[in-house]
Amino acid sequence: MRELRPCLKLWVEAEGRIVMSDYRVRLLEYIDETGSLARAAANMNLSYRRAWGKVKELEENLGFPLVQSEVGGPGGGQTTLTPAGEAFVRAYARFQQRMHDQLQVAFDEEMEAMRAVEPASPGAS
Amino acid sequence: MRELRPCLKLWVEAEGRIVMSDYRVRLLEYIDETGSLARAAANMNLSYRRAWGKVKELEENLGFPLVQSEVGGPGGGQTTLTPAGEAFVRAYARFQQRMHDQLQVAFDEEMEAMRAVEPASPGAS
Repeated sequence: MRELRPCLKLWVEAEGRIVMSDYRVRLLEYIDETGSLARAAANMNLSYRRAWGKVKELEENLGFPLVQSEVGGPGGGQTTLTPAGEAFVRAYARFQQRMHDQLQVAFDEEMEAMRAVEPASPGAS
Repeated sequence: MRELRPCLKLWVEAEGRIVMSDYRVRLLEYIDETGSLARAAANMNLSYRRAWGKVKELEENLGFPLVQSEVGGPGGGQTTLTPAGEAFVRAYARFQQRMHDQLQVAFDEEMEAMRAVEPASPGAS
């Protein structure tokens, strides 16, 4: 039997609207790491405008701000996660990690179980 | 905080090609239930031709047959799952069920953890 790879896509909705996903959390994690929406956008191959739109859409759907911007200062402007944004990003990342860990375990176990009870199943022939 | 709903999409690949998904397993489960590709296709709002194409594509990507057809007989033709097809569909369904069960548990626990450590997190404001 060919080697099988289980795949997973996760997201979160509120009132049918997307408030987080594997893709979007990466953008927010880059903002957290770089302190810059421009650099986070570049890491995702997104335009600044498009990255900003994605963040604003999530905030609107969630009902609270995820990022905060400071204009000027010695290092120029900065965009960082709000405390609530940081907490939500971290919680989603942990949720994501657990699901990815579980993905391989559950798949392997059920495929094993299949082979155990089905001597005529694929791979045995 | 608005009520958040975690969502999940699962599929399986072999050599980068899709060999099963939440959508495709439903078609196969309908074939198993009805003994008829035509009825399974109708349940999925697919044309017979398109449903057949999906099954054949999966078989090609997997390298073994999932369904078998009998022509004629007292009840007319029948399409059923092969033993290997049945074993694979059942294993995928169990895998899927485990992941869906885990989805809500993992999400709820991580959201709880977030609220516990972040008194200023969303919902508290």
